[in-house]
Amino acid sequence: MKRMQIGLIGCGTVGEGVARILLDQQEILKDRLGMEMVLKKVADTDTQRTRSVTFAEGVFTTDASEILEDPEIDVVVEMVGGTGFAKDAILKAMEQGKHVVTANKKLLALEGNSLFAKAFQKNVTIAYEASVGGCMPIIKTLRENLVANRIFAMTGILNGTCNYILTEITRLGLSFEEALEQAKIKGFAEADPTLDIEGCDAAHKLAIISAIAYGMEIDFEGVYVEGISRIEPLDILYADQFGYRIKLLAISKNHGDSIEARVHPAMIPVDCLLSQVGGSVNALSIFGDCTGEMMLYGHGAGMMPTASAVVADLADIARDMKREDGGRLPALGYPSKNIRKIPVLPISEIQTHYYFRISAADQPGVLSRVSGILAKYSISIMSVHQKERHASDAVPLVFMTHRAKEADVRKALGEIRELPEIGCDPVLIRIEDPQANGCAHT
Amino acid sequence: MKRMQIGLIGCGTVGEGVARILLDQQEILKDRLGMEMVLKKVADTDTQRTRSVTFAEGVFTTDASEILEDPEIDVVVEMVGGTGFAKDAILKAMEQGKHVVTANKKLLALEGNSLFAKAFQKNVTIAYEASVGGCMPIIKTLRENLVANRIFAMTGILNGTCNYILTEITRLGLSFEEALEQAKIKGFAEADPTLDIEGCDAAHKLAIISAIAYGMEIDFEGVYVEGISRIEPLDILYADQFGYRIKLLAISKNHGDSIEARVHPAMIPVDCLLSQVGGSVNALSIFGDCTGEMMLYGHGAGMMPTASAVVADLADIARDMKREDGGRLPALGYPSKNIRKIPVLPISEIQTHYYFRISAADQPGVLSRVSGILAKYSISIMSVHQKERHASDAVPLVFMTHRAKEADVRKALGEIRELPEIGCDPVLIRIEDPQANGCAHT
Repeated sequence: MKRMQIGLIGCGTVGEGVARILLDQQEILKDRLGMEMVLKKVADTDTQRTRSVTFAEGVFTTDASEILEDPEIDVVVEMVGGTGFAKDAILKAMEQGKHVVTANKKLLALEGNSLFAKAFQKNVTIAYEASVGGCMPIIKTLRENLVANRIFAMTGILNGTCNYILTEITRLGLSFEEALEQAKIKGFAEADPTLDIEGCDAAHKLAIISAIAYGMEIDFEGVYVEGISRIEPLDILYADQFGYRIKLLAISKNHGDSIEARVHPAMIPVDCLLSQVGGSVNALSIFGDCTGEMMLYGHGAGMMPTASAVVADLADIARDMKREDGGRLPALGYPSKNIRKIPVLPISEIQTHYYFRISAADQPGVLSRVSGILAKYSISIMSVHQKERHASDAVPLVFMTHRAKEADVRKALGEIRELPEIGCDPVLIRIEDPQANGCAHT
Repeated sequence: MKRMQIGLIGCGTVGEGVARILLDQQEILKDRLGMEMVLKKVADTDTQRTRSVTFAEGVFTTDASEILEDPEIDVVVEMVGGTGFAKDAILKAMEQGKHVVTANKKLLALEGNSLFAKAFQKNVTIAYEASVGGCMPIIKTLRENLVANRIFAMTGILNGTCNYILTEITRLGLSFEEALEQAKIKGFAEADPTLDIEGCDAAHKLAIISAIAYGMEIDFEGVYVEGISRIEPLDILYADQFGYRIKLLAISKNHGDSIEARVHPAMIPVDCLLSQVGGSVNALSIFGDCTGEMMLYGHGAGMMPTASAVVADLADIARDMKREDGGRLPALGYPSKNIRKIPVLPISEIQTHYYFRISAADQPGVLSRVSGILAKYSISIMSVHQKERHASDAVPLVFMTHRAKEADVRKALGEIRELPEIGCDPVLIRIEDPQANGCAHT
């Protein structure tokens, strides 16, 4: 089996997440890629930090040059941040013919043009999906899915710290300072949150995605930036009265021979989907001439969402190096030999919440008999509503249940149908709470 | 310049859109790909249909074999639909070593396993991003961006016809039949809408994306399907009372050694983002173990959104054939020689709506003086609010304006600041309406 050898420089929060995926998700990655991604070396000067991963003997080093000078390492993952050492490391890696994956939006916003020129010259890939919007597929969507579109405009919530703070001011009427304090306690703001709350972080991201969308050089200096520190609860209140919410928006518009690019607090109508994006989540709305409006939504920061995007970049490079199985990508993403048969459960086996509406003659004892049948099948009732009598003598009886098994529900409804007071087939609608799907790591 | 030659079989709605992009957007595609995509032949038996594209002499034919047997054609785009001729054409194309792009969800749901096996055997690509969710980047996100994730669950609104009908029943209290009639008139439902309203279309899509997400064979037969034709306004009313909306959901969940896959009407909490997706738009929420919840939102059908996805597949194949400029994809998506400098407008040049809050002494004539200054700079007022007197003698004066130029706004606010009645710097917040960005074609 082919292998790609990876060197990770910088093992802070996101770096640790990348290491965790490469070690813990090895099987699923091997399954999908049909090749191995090997984390050969990890360099960090901080040897004291407690990390959730354990490296094999000889993997961890404090000396990044052990990675940069290792001819066996195919790809360097730069997770150091900043524009100093990170830049040198990336340049050196490319100089050695290594591909680079980075999430360093600041470095790319400020020096991306020269770094990309270097990558072109050295014929290596520099991948940076994680630099904008964490796990949201923004870079890939712009570079690949929207290739047929002239992009008219992009409007995004690209900084989770600001969105969390604004959401809390709106929700609880806190002052900016109180909300910032909350954000720090909850881990949504850094000790020095200046880059976030003054809008620079969102502006870095906007500069990068504008370049991709419009085919222009990255121009961070051109982006107008205004942060959220001057937002007062009073203005949020007025906004609410007029039917608006205040969000820190990153906006860019295509005027053909010029563009707009600006980051500032803005009011947007409450009935607009972006205004519904609350908490630390990010979203980007993109208008293309063919697609119309499209929106991407997801965790724009955090250890595992960002690491997920870094590893996706690694996988792209791996697939590029491999290319044997019918082009770059096999049809289902997995090499065909790794496709399994997995049974789909019959509907009788699923469990969910249920809504029933039963049309019953308005006679004493109906409710008792119906709920008795539900109890017999261990179907637990969350709420029941019986409306006042209609013109006819049938009344609707409405139940919402706790989690129950479909097979039991069907048996119960079958018996209920047979009751003499029941007029017609009960209505059954399943209740889903998409937010309730358990998810780990984030 | 390298070229990729394309044969298009089927020039109905989406096929026409594909032809339109390949002809009208030639320049932007050449710019981005650094190569030419040439629409060499178009085959359709319908010679009478009025189409918005004009083909050069010799391009249009009624005989698909002219495409399938042309050795110069690299890729066949199958836009016929159905499982008969479309399947034969795809098999024949692959047999000839041609890549295939299709949007035929029904064919893939029913016969994808054997078609993909054939593609693997022939070492050609079969691309199908447009088969699920129109222009939403679902296939690419699942196969590439989420490669590091174990997918736990997907919940989607994958049929625009049903979503439009349910939205209209909810909004206007129509019966199912009335809403369906509306949908037909507005072009959101076909003359025979059975495949859509009975849930089969959504089930085809769910079968395809479940296979990708979980690495399993496509199993359409396993998907439980229930349509929306039995939904009554009364149940929508009850749902509303309990804080839910009714949507036709496509749901799949990963239980490791088995999965759930089902399409049926379901209640979802109103505060859940999916419940806010109205009209004919589609959305898919994906839970990964690293990413947590992520959502994609966009036009799931229609000529240009679907054609956009077809052409993105063509571009992927083209880039795969090319590969010279630092890996498969240059850093900004465009080959570096095609990257331009495009000026970013200074903030003074932009135009938008504005909100001002001015703190003014409560004296006669203030409103007149402030609005006089706004008028002088041609800033037209949309609404003005003056709250009752506060404890202090300053009252907040709030304005919302029509579209104005930032430079004018700044000058006006500067003058307003100098008025003797004004206590401190006016607050300025820009108002954006992301939905108001003009977009053509859709």
